[in-house]
Amino acid sequence: VAAEAPADVGAQPTGSAATFQTLQVTTEDNITTIRLDRPQKKNAITVEMYNELIEALELAGKDDSVITVITGNGDYYCSGNDLNNFTKIPEGGIEKMAKDAGELLRRYVKAYIDFPKPLIAVVNGPAVGVSVTLLGLFDVVYATEKATFHTPFSQLGQSPEGCSSYTFPKMMGAAKASEMLLFNKKLTATQAREQGLVTEVFPDTSFQSEVWARLKAYAKLPRNSLALSKQLIRGMERERLHTVNDQEVERLVERWLSDECMQAIMSFFQAKAKL
Amino acid sequence: VAAEAPADVGAQPTGSAATFQTLQVTTEDNITTIRLDRPQKKNAITVEMYNELIEALELAGKDDSVITVITGNGDYYCSGNDLNNFTKIPEGGIEKMAKDAGELLRRYVKAYIDFPKPLIAVVNGPAVGVSVTLLGLFDVVYATEKATFHTPFSQLGQSPEGCSSYTFPKMMGAAKASEMLLFNKKLTATQAREQGLVTEVFPDTSFQSEVWARLKAYAKLPRNSLALSKQLIRGMERERLHTVNDQEVERLVERWLSDECMQAIMSFFQAKAKL
Amino acid sequence: VAAEAPADVGAQPTGSAATFQTLQVTTEDNITTIRLDRPQKKNAITVEMYNELIEALELAGKDDSVITVITGNGDYYCSGNDLNNFTKIPEGGIEKMAKDAGELLRRYVKAYIDFPKPLIAVVNGPAVGVSVTLLGLFDVVYATEKATFHTPFSQLGQSPEGCSSYTFPKMMGAAKASEMLLFNKKLTATQAREQGLVTEVFPDTSFQSEVWARLKAYAKLPRNSLALSKQLIRGMERERLHTVNDQEVERLVERWLSDECMQAIMSFFQAKAKL
Repeated sequence: VAAEAPADVGAQPTGSAATFQTLQVTTEDNITTIRLDRPQKKNAITVEMYNELIEALELAGKDDSVITVITGNGDYYCSGNDLNNFTKIPEGGIEKMAKDAGELLRRYVKAYIDFPKPLIAVVNGPAVGVSVTLLGLFDVVYATEKATFHTPFSQLGQSPEGCSSYTFPKMMGAAKASEMLLFNKKLTATQAREQGLVTEVFPDTSFQSEVWARLKAYAKLPRNSLALSKQLIRGMERERLHTVNDQEVERLVERWLSDECMQAIMSFFQAKAKL
Repeated sequence: VAAEAPADVGAQPTGSAATFQTLQVTTEDNITTIRLDRPQKKNAITVEMYNELIEALELAGKDDSVITVITGNGDYYCSGNDLNNFTKIPEGGIEKMAKDAGELLRRYVKAYIDFPKPLIAVVNGPAVGVSVTLLGLFDVVYATEKATFHTPFSQLGQSPEGCSSYTFPKMMGAAKASEMLLFNKKLTATQAREQGLVTEVFPDTSFQSEVWARLKAYAKLPRNSLALSKQLIRGMERERLHTVNDQEVERLVERWLSDECMQAIMSFFQAKAKL
Repeated sequence: VAAEAPADVGAQPTGSAATFQTLQVTTEDNITTIRLDRPQKKNAITVEMYNELIEALELAGKDDSVITVITGNGDYYCSGNDLNNFTKIPEGGIEKMAKDAGELLRRYVKAYIDFPKPLIAVVNGPAVGVSVTLLGLFDVVYATEKATFHTPFSQLGQSPEGCSSYTFPKMMGAAKASEMLLFNKKLTATQAREQGLVTEVFPDTSFQSEVWARLKAYAKLPRNSLALSKQLIRGMERERLHTVNDQEVERLVERWLSDECMQAIMSFFQAKAKL
């Protein structure tokens, strides 16, 4: 049963860790931790980072760890999709760019839907866009009191993704989900906990120590019991989640090609250029 | 794009406003507002008012507004179904009356299920019966602290409608939904917010100013992005909601013809007559 | 209509009450109450008690009562599955034991899914394991402030049952359900109320008087209206719940035969033997 308890791995990063440009990935104490590592860019997700996250999740799902954690390096958890992804128009034109971006997003969300063991978010600071919507696919979400949760889709002429059009109304009711997903309401950590998006909120000063103590205890629980229980809970809606993901991506690709959205993104960059 | 921003409509009611006897309907600042206008009867819904609401929702769904608001004139939001609807037995007898009332209710709830753009309730006072159960089909529900929420179905020998047998357990869990839908518990505005039925509660003194400031800001967001996002969120359960509506109406028509219900309604009028 | 109001039954237990060894069953004031009656064993559920509960629920579903209540005698509500159920290996070996236990559990949970009238839990003290997971199938759950709610499945190498893999995420969102079902978090009564598992919490000193006053009032409501409304609310997901029950039991039988689970249960008895 040595393979089940790689206790002697210690704090050493695994071999795969070296292959990522935008992530730090380590396995220690039966926990594989994926750290978003573009702190100077508030961990905004580039095309490269999407691809690396898909690969890191695939590796973590297969490795010997009991639980997998995603967190951010620096002050932000993640500022969402890097809008610069939309500024390099490829040869195939804007239609091709939208189609490719949609396919990448679909694969990215799919990696969360299909993740086979407990997946835990350690939200170390503000979270924006797809990093918020995906929280509905995590099994546990721990947040510092300094975290905020913001999904400003309609402001940018876009529409919800990450299965949030299904998971958010399910967890908090339509009346609260719509305020976030349609009307761009930014939640505090405490509000997010009250609405079921966050499991528990911690004081910022003790956040890392309290959370990691807890995670280390979790990682000592029977591995198969945890994985099979998670699959039982999620298995019943997995097909539904894939359908939701497909529909959300389809709608979003249409949106990206709409005048409303292009206008909104251009305004975003103009406002930024003036700073 | 002039059609998208009827800014010069000002505070003028639209042409259609004049055609309603029980409602005030206006379009202003990209917001179509439907006001229940029987304040002396606590906005109890007559047969005429059901028909006018269906028509007003159909018009609002097609007009140029970005969001649609329902609210009440006077102290009440709405006191629910006007029980006088049950006192005029038509030629076909009580069976025909129950069947017609069921069909009217089915069409009324259908208008909410199919509404294509964000629908917001501004709950200005007590809400009773079908005006409460339908809140599960609104996208945002703002309430004054003076509002209360009461669904006394079983007391009248009846059963839940407005898709509440599905939306209430979904948003608040069966243990809290049953206390309302089976055992007639009346909620305060704060309790309704805690249970996910209400998005946010406001002090009565600043209710109208705070809410309308917010709604005007919402109505400036990209119109299509909002409508398509709402349809994405609701589209996945639309078929389900229609099935629920049909089942609820079928059950309710049976109930209306039961001795239990007739007895309860007669007692209601006897008690009222004694006042 | 005399059959509808057995008011003269008084505090007398019904004839069927005498036939149970592990339960006290009474019908009074239109309420059938099933009391778990192994207080010296914290109301842990033996094989005999599972069978008696199935029978008691079947009888209560058919009798003249308006509502049915489950509660515990003594300090505990219920400490869950009696692990001694796993110590008497039958002739067919451990495979047969696991299969029989699975079938018993399946029938037990089925009795809750199919229960045709309002079912209310009066949680008089700590609740553990299957007595917690089944709360998602009750219509109302009243708890003393002294109650706690604990589902330590993974600790014992097991997996969730009682339809909790479906009802818990539905009522509280995955982020809170997983902490209970995967990571063994024990909830206070207040936490359980906040997460929708409990309808209302009462001070321990007034718990019994407040709750029973309320239940007696409920039991005076129109019987058919309550039963049909409950069936309307639950009917829509009944098929789903049976599927969930089957899947949970299948997974649990596999777990019981796993090394992980056997090891965990042996450690439990070893620790107990040392006391």
